[in-house]
Amino acid sequence: MTTTVERAQYSDRVPIRSIILRPDGGSGLAGQHARVGGWVKTGRKADKDAFAFLELNDGSCAGNLQIIVEADKGDLGQLVLTGACLQVDGVLKLPPDGKKQKVELQVEKVIHVGVVDASKYPLPKTRLPLELLRDYVHLRARTNTMGAVARIRDELSYATKRFFHERGFRYVNTPNITTSDCEGAGEMFQVTTLISEAEKLEKNLIKNPPPSEVDVESAKLIIKQRGNDVAQLKSAKASKQEIGIAVAELQKAKENVLKMEERSKLQPGIPQKDGKIDYSQDFFARQAFLTVSGQLQLESYACALSTVYTFGPTFRAEKSHTSRHLAEFWMVEPEMAFAELEHDMDCAEDYVKFMCQWLLDHCMEDMKFFADKIDKSCIDRITMSAKTPFARITYTEAVELLTDAVKNGKKFENHVEWGIDLASEHERYLTEVKFQKPVIVYNYPKEIKAFYMRLNDDSKTVAAMDVLVPKVGELIGGSQREERYDVMLSRMKEMGLPIEPYEWYLDLRRYGTVKHCGFGLGFERMVQFATGLDNIKDCMPFPRSAGRADL
Amino acid sequence: MTTTVERAQYSDRVPIRSIILRPDGGSGLAGQHARVGGWVKTGRKADKDAFAFLELNDGSCAGNLQIIVEADKGDLGQLVLTGACLQVDGVLKLPPDGKKQKVELQVEKVIHVGVVDASKYPLPKTRLPLELLRDYVHLRARTNTMGAVARIRDELSYATKRFFHERGFRYVNTPNITTSDCEGAGEMFQVTTLISEAEKLEKNLIKNPPPSEVDVESAKLIIKQRGNDVAQLKSAKASKQEIGIAVAELQKAKENVLKMEERSKLQPGIPQKDGKIDYSQDFFARQAFLTVSGQLQLESYACALSTVYTFGPTFRAEKSHTSRHLAEFWMVEPEMAFAELEHDMDCAEDYVKFMCQWLLDHCMEDMKFFADKIDKSCIDRITMSAKTPFARITYTEAVELLTDAVKNGKKFENHVEWGIDLASEHERYLTEVKFQKPVIVYNYPKEIKAFYMRLNDDSKTVAAMDVLVPKVGELIGGSQREERYDVMLSRMKEMGLPIEPYEWYLDLRRYGTVKHCGFGLGFERMVQFATGLDNIKDCMPFPRSAGRADL
Repeated sequence: MTTTVERAQYSDRVPIRSIILRPDGGSGLAGQHARVGGWVKTGRKADKDAFAFLELNDGSCAGNLQIIVEADKGDLGQLVLTGACLQVDGVLKLPPDGKKQKVELQVEKVIHVGVVDASKYPLPKTRLPLELLRDYVHLRARTNTMGAVARIRDELSYATKRFFHERGFRYVNTPNITTSDCEGAGEMFQVTTLISEAEKLEKNLIKNPPPSEVDVESAKLIIKQRGNDVAQLKSAKASKQEIGIAVAELQKAKENVLKMEERSKLQPGIPQKDGKIDYSQDFFARQAFLTVSGQLQLESYACALSTVYTFGPTFRAEKSHTSRHLAEFWMVEPEMAFAELEHDMDCAEDYVKFMCQWLLDHCMEDMKFFADKIDKSCIDRITMSAKTPFARITYTEAVELLTDAVKNGKKFENHVEWGIDLASEHERYLTEVKFQKPVIVYNYPKEIKAFYMRLNDDSKTVAAMDVLVPKVGELIGGSQREERYDVMLSRMKEMGLPIEPYEWYLDLRRYGTVKHCGFGLGFERMVQFATGLDNIKDCMPFPRSAGRADL
Repeated sequence: MTTTVERAQYSDRVPIRSIILRPDGGSGLAGQHARVGGWVKTGRKADKDAFAFLELNDGSCAGNLQIIVEADKGDLGQLVLTGACLQVDGVLKLPPDGKKQKVELQVEKVIHVGVVDASKYPLPKTRLPLELLRDYVHLRARTNTMGAVARIRDELSYATKRFFHERGFRYVNTPNITTSDCEGAGEMFQVTTLISEAEKLEKNLIKNPPPSEVDVESAKLIIKQRGNDVAQLKSAKASKQEIGIAVAELQKAKENVLKMEERSKLQPGIPQKDGKIDYSQDFFARQAFLTVSGQLQLESYACALSTVYTFGPTFRAEKSHTSRHLAEFWMVEPEMAFAELEHDMDCAEDYVKFMCQWLLDHCMEDMKFFADKIDKSCIDRITMSAKTPFARITYTEAVELLTDAVKNGKKFENHVEWGIDLASEHERYLTEVKFQKPVIVYNYPKEIKAFYMRLNDDSKTVAAMDVLVPKVGELIGGSQREERYDVMLSRMKEMGLPIEPYEWYLDLRRYGTVKHCGFGLGFERMVQFATGLDNIKDCMPFPRSAGRADL
């Protein structure tokens, strides 16, 4: 262990993490000089205002560094306020009683103070309900909970990159604006410039109204006059220069009429054609939407690079006001060629385990915070998920288990029978009560699954799989993709899907088709699984949902 | 070095990379059994069709594995076609003349063939122009160039994660749908459900037209009749049951009228209020756009976690048809608290160098491809950028250098004088001709920069910086942010910006303000810098631009 303080890169400060998260809690650094910066969590004056104790947090970790400032070093009244920003030089020293903290900083010089008006600052030192904090998304990262969420998200995203990179998966950025509809346009956001263009035009037309028919007619008369002028000058054998000027005037008059005719055609409002919106005038010359999944496009890369994944935002315009849904969320989607459903399940299980182990190895300070304040069982849940093999059952077995449960007195709101889409209550029963660990359910009835999932030999089920985990329910959904052109085509027809928009997707089956599979993991659900937070809106820095998109 | 073949995870195949990219080119694996899969690049029959030579590529690397199949193992006519997919078991062996490849695979069994109709497959074995390939974004990843671009993108994105993670930066997902306009709404895409809702309503109204006034009046008459029925039954002392039925009928008639009145109010088209679009009925209950930069939101996290970055898509609705612009592109944006412009420049330079070194360490096979086929100088450029300190000059010095150049006969299309925004030709002159290496230009006139950039003591310039690199010009733009509330407010007023939408942003200066800075790197420009590709549309898997958004 080094016994000199480690400076942050691209700053003169020392991250508080590198002081207090040392195995010795920082005591080995006593005597060293350090510059630190951060925001005051709590502060109090002591010894008749001779000095102040401040708890300083810089977000590098959950813990605070205790700071001692004497009255001659600064305005203690400003420094003790929750939310004040502070950068100071000081000496690390052992506190008189080293129980709570192993080291503290005695200030030698105050470098910077960012004051706070305590009467207006919306985040007092007392704990606010998470729901209320959502009204302050620009400040809530300063709270213990949201700071910890941010670090967990960061670590899970880094673990994701490591997991896939180390296994040869290539990161592909699938498009966010798409003209290809994955599973039905009902829930998609439209991306357009038609409205803003129409508004611009309207403003323009008000400021500068289009010419009337009468205006155009009189402008046409001017052409005639100018024409006559030219004719007269020519017959009068005027100078070349004079004729030239008159010809130019004639030309100008003609151009003016063309412009006026053009403008008189301008119609306020969104451009229409044959009674419908004329999307040929939209930015992309056709209707465009925000993606609901990168899967289809990603498959085109899997059918070239073999193992790929995407990790990006996805969008759903569902007006559901639940604690489980966001209008914008992040999704991790791997796609593997030369691989079948069992490989898919192996990859999904390994990936979830890898993230769980990563949390245990790198995030224990924050995980302890969640276990302490939010969800007692979260560390146990993550530890168990990292180490225990997931259960794997077919959909048919799952329905049997649920039916048995009903027979034994378990009450579900949704009726259980073969063919139903499992409801959240069913999923949570399987993973939380029956198996008490993550469960993979596979081979679902084809009627409840998408057209691209591979038809099994029984012709009734498809090679789909969902990973269910305690606390969350469905964390991952995936499938082996149908690689047989004929089978896919007949399933699309069976389901009444239009063929033309999927011609490119069918091309992947026409030209060098390959067995392949993949899945999608809802990243915010993984954060929820880790932290035990009840509302998914608190698992996302800037949550978007029906009626709400702050900032 | 291991001398057994390494299987891919989640597949039974061996990635071709782990055979031919060994230091010995795979010769040490001779005698080993391996299953490989991939797509045929070229194939030819030999020895009177007794066997075929195939060049197989699985995208794990640029190189192909040579495969030898005898006629009794499969339909050679199908196998030799460019684009066919193949999975085979075989034995690795030393080729008779080991000049071109060090190892080849003798097929023992063909596991899978994905055939291709050569007469229809749009990608023949001859090289197609990149512009033409853009018509086949779903297949072009199978070409040598686009495969190499995909691997370079992947490695640069991984290098980005490593660089920032190892330096304590936390990854924050800033929102893609935003209600906060970064620098002026003109170039933003609107995100809405108003149009699709209006279309849905219109269909509904055609199918099921709203009731006319006459319809409503006759429905109201029914209420009267039902009321009379009830009164009659009561006065006739009918049974409770009879009266109950009549009351229910009355109730139904009333509800029917309410419903009809509700429906008769339905107006086709986008909802209006006071002659304007009524955004309170849009999905987010207000106007929403796609983000043009995550910076402002990211600052709120920097003012809590100290060092953060975002890496996500950004969107510009600019109708420019250049080889330098995309409507959807990815941007890397770090933001650091307790840091000033010099830290910002240090970080930007280190980050670019780190990526260049990463390319040299991890991507030489693909870099050699680009040097060979696309841009001779790309490896030299990347090597130089990795090792040479970047030049750093003020904007004022840059203008002086450009003025000197003009004096010495250099011709620019755009006039040079203090105060101009440097044009691409100026930037490229500085980095390509004058310094012949990356250049950081800093302290720009405030008039040409955004309101949030920190005003320098001269009151004329702001603490902005751009990193210019050969081939591309501006790769990075950044600044120290104005942390002084009063200065920011007066600059906003000076520039005529509305204050209300930025109140949250001003809060970051009101409550615990801190010196901070950051920058944005256009990820596709970095890919262009690395590969030397002329058109940025080829640096993005699924490019979007005015009039074009395939898939």
